[in-house]
Amino acid sequence: MQQKMDVAALTAFLRSDFAQVAGMFEVLEAGAETVIRLKVDDSHLRPGGTVSGPTMFALADVGIYLAILARIGPVALAVTTNATIDFLRKPLAGVDLIARVRVLKLGRSLAVGECLIFSEGQGEPVARASMTYAIPPKALS
Amino acid sequence: MQQKMDVAALTAFLRSDFAQVAGMFEVLEAGAETVIRLKVDDSHLRPGGTVSGPTMFALADVGIYLAILARIGPVALAVTTNATIDFLRKPLAGVDLIARVRVLKLGRSLAVGECLIFSEGQGEPVARASMTYAIPPKALS
Amino acid sequence: MQQKMDVAALTAFLRSDFAQVAGMFEVLEAGAETVIRLKVDDSHLRPGGTVSGPTMFALADVGIYLAILARIGPVALAVTTNATIDFLRKPLAGVDLIARVRVLKLGRSLAVGECLIFSEGQGEPVARASMTYAIPPKALS
Amino acid sequence: MQQKMDVAALTAFLRSDFAQVAGMFEVLEAGAETVIRLKVDDSHLRPGGTVSGPTMFALADVGIYLAILARIGPVALAVTTNATIDFLRKPLAGVDLIARVRVLKLGRSLAVGECLIFSEGQGEPVARASMTYAIPPKALS
Repeated sequence: MQQKMDVAALTAFLRSDFAQVAGMFEVLEAGAETVIRLKVDDSHLRPGGTVSGPTMFALADVGIYLAILARIGPVALAVTTNATIDFLRKPLAGVDLIARVRVLKLGRSLAVGECLIFSEGQGEPVARASMTYAIPPKALS
Repeated sequence: MQQKMDVAALTAFLRSDFAQVAGMFEVLEAGAETVIRLKVDDSHLRPGGTVSGPTMFALADVGIYLAILARIGPVALAVTTNATIDFLRKPLAGVDLIARVRVLKLGRSLAVGECLIFSEGQGEPVARASMTYAIPPKALS
Repeated sequence: MQQKMDVAALTAFLRSDFAQVAGMFEVLEAGAETVIRLKVDDSHLRPGGTVSGPTMFALADVGIYLAILARIGPVALAVTTNATIDFLRKPLAGVDLIARVRVLKLGRSLAVGECLIFSEGQGEPVARASMTYAIPPKALS
Repeated sequence: MQQKMDVAALTAFLRSDFAQVAGMFEVLEAGAETVIRLKVDDSHLRPGGTVSGPTMFALADVGIYLAILARIGPVALAVTTNATIDFLRKPLAGVDLIARVRVLKLGRSLAVGECLIFSEGQGEPVARASMTYAIPPKALS
């Protein structure tokens, strides 16, 4: 499948269109697999020192969204319609999270992607997520 | 089913065990249905002025968690294992969100709840969520 | 919301468009809540005598699909895009299942519904399901 | 991770413990990835000639279940607690389906797996599924 945005283009898009959260994330790879880092800080933690569920949700959402944009170009209008997350293990304390994303479908009106989330350097995932986005009719023309 | 915690007890638990986010939420009812308000402020918004997905995720997670605690008592150890959200409509700008939660199962090791989320005063839900929590063995003894 | 098909119309649609499975189901109510019965027989059972997961999936899928058709009319083209089921309790052996369905969203291109499934006569649900359907562009015009 | 059952052992288990559906499935591989074939026949089809949703659900359920048993041994007691499926594309008519399964978590009380389902010989998946199973306490001792 063709790529319309690379790491630099996705990073620029994140800064311009998601300024509020852009500082949390770093785009590491864009290709067959899109890879995003969540730079963990204290605001993401639950009591006990592990990253909160909503923060992992945000990482999966941004990661899958960017992986889709990498294919269709900078369309700021796709909206999440469905999200499912399985929380598998406690993330390591004080370690960044890495989301490895694949796009499974890029249809005329729906796009679907999935990711595994890892504590950096670990082999077993801490979470799995899949999300569906509705794409506005004009976006693919 | 029996209730072990009322609105005051849930509110106190939220403040002691989730101090970081307690200010975002208000417990309105605890009973057959548990009702939680998300006090929307600028930090919850996406470009365009609507509440972000991760913020709705956080509301559903806290709401279902508190509804389960209302039944089993203040056990700070249950962890979310699975979460599914359907985003149905854009929330109204500048309006609080209300989650109406029901507990569907309270087993020995798993609890399941669901909620509908509304923009306050509206009849059509903006989101639907269901979540599963693993309960540690001792919590129910 | 308006209803375009009643119990008789949904039953006729089931027989004409889903002849292969129509005998399994009975439409009991069509309105704010659509209610469908699964007439349990031996072919639906797992070892141990309880209804299988795929059979409950089929009940939820048919039930939510019919509830959506009740609103938009006999459009045989909507396809399921996402389905989530929580299995909550073992169904009673030898007892029909009842699905109680609500439509949560009826958009231009997506419809979302959810249901609770009960062993007939029981108060606690055996399963919860939510499903999303893509509606072809012409269907709503 | 260790394997306790190979292709022959999984096939024998399927025949003894799931006699009713064993003829539908063929275990092709058991290892880091477990691969299962659904031998499509007329009873699995919807009008239009494509495999029905409940049949794909059954394939995912059996496939992930067997992949978990391959790790923990022939424990006929694990029950599905949560299932999520995304239907991505129409399966090819008259072609078997292949499920490629990975186990993501094998905990003391919960196991989680996911699969992609393909029309045999095609590169793009027709469905994605993830499922959670509750494992009875004795099963892992």
